[in-house]
Amino acid sequence: MEWVDVPNDACSTWRTLQLIGDRWTMLVLRDLFNGVRRFDDFQRHLGVARDVLTRRLSGLVDAGLVSREPYREQGQRARHEYRLTKAGKDLRPVLVALMEWGDRWLPAEAGPALVLSHQDCGEPVGVKIVCRAGHDAGRELVMHPGPGARAAGSAGPEPAVDAVS
Amino acid sequence: MEWVDVPNDACSTWRTLQLIGDRWTMLVLRDLFNGVRRFDDFQRHLGVARDVLTRRLSGLVDAGLVSREPYREQGQRARHEYRLTKAGKDLRPVLVALMEWGDRWLPAEAGPALVLSHQDCGEPVGVKIVCRAGHDAGRELVMHPGPGARAAGSAGPEPAVDAVS
Repeated sequence: MEWVDVPNDACSTWRTLQLIGDRWTMLVLRDLFNGVRRFDDFQRHLGVARDVLTRRLSGLVDAGLVSREPYREQGQRARHEYRLTKAGKDLRPVLVALMEWGDRWLPAEAGPALVLSHQDCGEPVGVKIVCRAGHDAGRELVMHPGPGARAAGSAGPEPAVDAVS
Repeated sequence: MEWVDVPNDACSTWRTLQLIGDRWTMLVLRDLFNGVRRFDDFQRHLGVARDVLTRRLSGLVDAGLVSREPYREQGQRARHEYRLTKAGKDLRPVLVALMEWGDRWLPAEAGPALVLSHQDCGEPVGVKIVCRAGHDAGRELVMHPGPGARAAGSAGPEPAVDAVS
């Protein structure tokens, strides 16, 4: 079996990217992680067209990544705030990994605009690939077909396709 | 200073997403990590239009994430293979985080199509947010403006905007 024979809809990365693999959606998520809650704040910060923003926020709500909660400021009509759900918050490693990559490979001359650090000890954080036994797995990865693999013309999964290089 | 005052082009996540924040680009990267090298294999596997694929691959080459290397099969004209550069390979945590999220939140009924495990010990891998002192920082994150922060109307960075919740 070749990896390329795995149908795309059986791939978790593919399915995730159907939900969030869009630049504006990712940037809305970034803003949500950083505490932005209100439509006008997203709009002002991202400089995105209102109809595009409306569609991206609705998509995130429909996908269960964001909840919409009513609020009302004195003398104004009721509006909504947007907050990450548990599923949405679980995307944090994706966002931290994107930021870390940019800090390294596309650094601004003045240095990073934002630094994320560990609340307890104050040290800066990053993302690591670790195994369940607690080892830093770095690049020492092996890819196996899992139970959901359905290779065309294959009787079933075969072990140890080593390709993540 | 509010986080929302940080200009987008000062943000590493924003800059990274200008390069790769596109569904096809991300899926091409996924295929590259899994050993796909040749135009026709990407095209067949992704089912993407050839002109779109050409543009995405060229964009990745121009951005320095992918190198283009000649090869020739007997009796055929010279063609190119595509391989991740060091910068490209450094996106691995982003891809592993996307896959892990999908495994958790969009699971296929039959189970995951692919399992990544640690070469040395065989245990499955995932992504963790860790600090430089080696602690699992999980959700205990604090965000500070870094040296590159240029808030509108601010005399300079102020510490400890806690927003990653």
